[in-house]
Amino acid sequence: MDLRPLFYPKSVAVIGASDEFSKLGFHVMKSLVQGGYEHPIYPVNPKKDLIMGLKAYPSVDKIPQQIDLAVVVVPNKAVLEVFKQCLSAGVKAFVLITAGFKEAEGEEGGILQEQLKELVGYKVPVVGPNTFGMVSYHSKLNASFTPEFSLSRPGNVAIVSQSGGISHLLGFAAQELGLSLSYVVGLGNRLNLDFHHMVGYLANEPNTKVAGLYIEGVEEPILLMKEIVKAGRTLPLVVMKAGVGEMADKASFSHTGSLAGNHQIFQRALKQAGALAVHDLESFLDLLKAYQILRPPIGPRVAILSGQAGPGIVGYDICVKKGLKVESFSKSTLEAIEAIIPPMAIRTNPVDLGPLWYDADATVNIVKTVLRDPEIDAVLFMMMFASANIRAIPGLLEGLRDISPEKPIFTCIRAPSGIWEDEIEEAEKLGLFCNFPTPERATKACYNMLLLESLRSKTKGGQIATDR
Amino acid sequence: MDLRPLFYPKSVAVIGASDEFSKLGFHVMKSLVQGGYEHPIYPVNPKKDLIMGLKAYPSVDKIPQQIDLAVVVVPNKAVLEVFKQCLSAGVKAFVLITAGFKEAEGEEGGILQEQLKELVGYKVPVVGPNTFGMVSYHSKLNASFTPEFSLSRPGNVAIVSQSGGISHLLGFAAQELGLSLSYVVGLGNRLNLDFHHMVGYLANEPNTKVAGLYIEGVEEPILLMKEIVKAGRTLPLVVMKAGVGEMADKASFSHTGSLAGNHQIFQRALKQAGALAVHDLESFLDLLKAYQILRPPIGPRVAILSGQAGPGIVGYDICVKKGLKVESFSKSTLEAIEAIIPPMAIRTNPVDLGPLWYDADATVNIVKTVLRDPEIDAVLFMMMFASANIRAIPGLLEGLRDISPEKPIFTCIRAPSGIWEDEIEEAEKLGLFCNFPTPERATKACYNMLLLESLRSKTKGGQIATDR
Repeated sequence: MDLRPLFYPKSVAVIGASDEFSKLGFHVMKSLVQGGYEHPIYPVNPKKDLIMGLKAYPSVDKIPQQIDLAVVVVPNKAVLEVFKQCLSAGVKAFVLITAGFKEAEGEEGGILQEQLKELVGYKVPVVGPNTFGMVSYHSKLNASFTPEFSLSRPGNVAIVSQSGGISHLLGFAAQELGLSLSYVVGLGNRLNLDFHHMVGYLANEPNTKVAGLYIEGVEEPILLMKEIVKAGRTLPLVVMKAGVGEMADKASFSHTGSLAGNHQIFQRALKQAGALAVHDLESFLDLLKAYQILRPPIGPRVAILSGQAGPGIVGYDICVKKGLKVESFSKSTLEAIEAIIPPMAIRTNPVDLGPLWYDADATVNIVKTVLRDPEIDAVLFMMMFASANIRAIPGLLEGLRDISPEKPIFTCIRAPSGIWEDEIEEAEKLGLFCNFPTPERATKACYNMLLLESLRSKTKGGQIATDR
Repeated sequence: MDLRPLFYPKSVAVIGASDEFSKLGFHVMKSLVQGGYEHPIYPVNPKKDLIMGLKAYPSVDKIPQQIDLAVVVVPNKAVLEVFKQCLSAGVKAFVLITAGFKEAEGEEGGILQEQLKELVGYKVPVVGPNTFGMVSYHSKLNASFTPEFSLSRPGNVAIVSQSGGISHLLGFAAQELGLSLSYVVGLGNRLNLDFHHMVGYLANEPNTKVAGLYIEGVEEPILLMKEIVKAGRTLPLVVMKAGVGEMADKASFSHTGSLAGNHQIFQRALKQAGALAVHDLESFLDLLKAYQILRPPIGPRVAILSGQAGPGIVGYDICVKKGLKVESFSKSTLEAIEAIIPPMAIRTNPVDLGPLWYDADATVNIVKTVLRDPEIDAVLFMMMFASANIRAIPGLLEGLRDISPEKPIFTCIRAPSGIWEDEIEEAEKLGLFCNFPTPERATKACYNMLLLESLRSKTKGGQIATDR
């Protein structure tokens, strides 16, 4: 299936467009119009002449232009007829928001979905049914019922989710965390567009550097694993698989019409295929953010530099638990550090930068010294704002801008609202460091990045490695 | 020791006050003045007549008023003499910010600390040395070098920490999460004021409802456990104990001069004494927030209500992992729910509120129905903003305001910045529900609250229960 007309259409029709707040067709129109989509938008509604200032058409065949993408929000019983019209008119892709298909109680919805699938086959891709829609950030296409998805910045992180609710949570969290997005796609009931299609597509298009999949259950796990293996080196994949219990199966079936499947088997297959399964939404987002901004560490040897000892100790604890190596520095590195920091605080790994609070240049020198050490693969840097050290992060930004570090720097820099925010944003934009809210999350992101790289390296050349 | 003059002094002197940004004495003065402390502040500095608009004195004995609290920021070698003067002048409490004592390399600092301890004994309480200071929110006393601690709202959560860095992180995170504070105390090297004194004090003063301790290592664990047991029913205690490895011991010693001690033994003792040990800073803060706002659940039976199925499934997963019970509702509750929600979504536990998006009243009715069920102990409520459901949370606020629920409601309500924030703040202020950033964190807070209550109930009447 060709997904270009879905994500980069040259025209969009909204079947079931509305100007009443109580209709989803209103919110979809608002998303498209406010999202800044740059090609024609055609509202379709037989009862209206004008919707949001745009001329409305009674049906899709009356539109004077070829339609690439149809976003469908009519009631479920009207969907089959609408699809027939659209296909005759040459529509090349669908977003089917309407619910009441396989996920609904009773048999009717399932039958409806089967009929629709028979009609559409695999000729044209359909996102949905039973979805909030999708957003393609690089074409400014917000084909969803939530205009606020467009508040996120365009970037290179793709999120593909079986759940609209989780898509919304991740989308809003991305805005807070500073993730910039290529796509957010709510697959819903997956009529003919499933996770494996999306993985294949994302691995071969230029706008995506890392992808996160939120999965409740899939019918074709083998196809998915094959595509994950093929995506191989080009696309790191982070997976959150929900549904650990019997009831989760039930809830998931009712949600998007799939069975969650055996959780353990699925996790093991993911690992073999070279994707990392994480177990909470924060780890999921943190790892996506790390890949957005940093190169992965090439080994487990970590230097911990901390403006105050406590956060360094908390980060060190996670290193110990996870098996990251925090070892004494080489003699030359240690001597260089001892030349900068007075003997008031601990100066080998972890390093307490406390005595350098007023001296942003000295702090930067320590960071540079450690980055030069060939026995260090990654840096964990912690700094809590404390009035006297207000120059620390502007200084770090300037110092790192000069050298563009090749090794990843995971930071936990925290301050009251309004302080250091611009510097952190700038540093992240430049790829100088990646910031997290706690020392634990910074350290786990480092560990998870290393772990995913190790899984990816085992599936060389598209082969599944045997599990150890 | 009487801690009232420390936390509620009627006068404060700053020994080492300064008006130069590069001196900590500047930041301490700024904290006191800007923090809004309502009693006299006396800067002490022999070289100045006026500091921040206040008359400066050459030494503490020249101040024309009895001084309750002295905040000391002179160099370490001058501390002994300053303390002698202060004690002669009748000072009743100290915050000793100066570093370079037991934590420093070499023997000198340790000897200095011993001499100081001999001088002071247990007559007057000393916070520190080697601390950022402390904040007593109900007396508007910011006796720290970070004025921004005063941005937090006064409330009933106390934080006692061995690390200044962690105190800052927790203080800033509290501002973001909406925690309101009674005290933030950085114990530093604990000259004569240790965790056990603080636990005893907090359990018997009216402004604190829950306390969090960040501990790296203590010299007198038995005394601490005894005080935790005594605090018993009146004060829930959440503990984060850092330092799991050998190097952590080394870092912690250099940090505040203590040994981290055997981690496992310490964790077990805490449990026996009736405090809950958590293992990351977010769980620590989340549990404090839950106690600030909610009554603990009286049992493990949870109802999950979710505006979108996905977040409900993620919450359900955590319930399964942790052992919270998510069981089918009673017949009468189920019938009541089925009368409100059409058969489009799952209607027993978890409940998918999706079909009620436009109907805030119906959503509130479901919440009320579930709260009335005698077989439900707590509610997990999830709702992601999606344009069409914008009335959902204002409606929930109004609906819950009418009934003031006795059972705790843990929520994960998320929206883009600026949406629903006022309603969430208002609901939390009224104790109607407590909001968390992810379904996982909401669910874990519920579980941890239940767990801490179970530990507390085993230490009835101040006795240590035998561990199972």
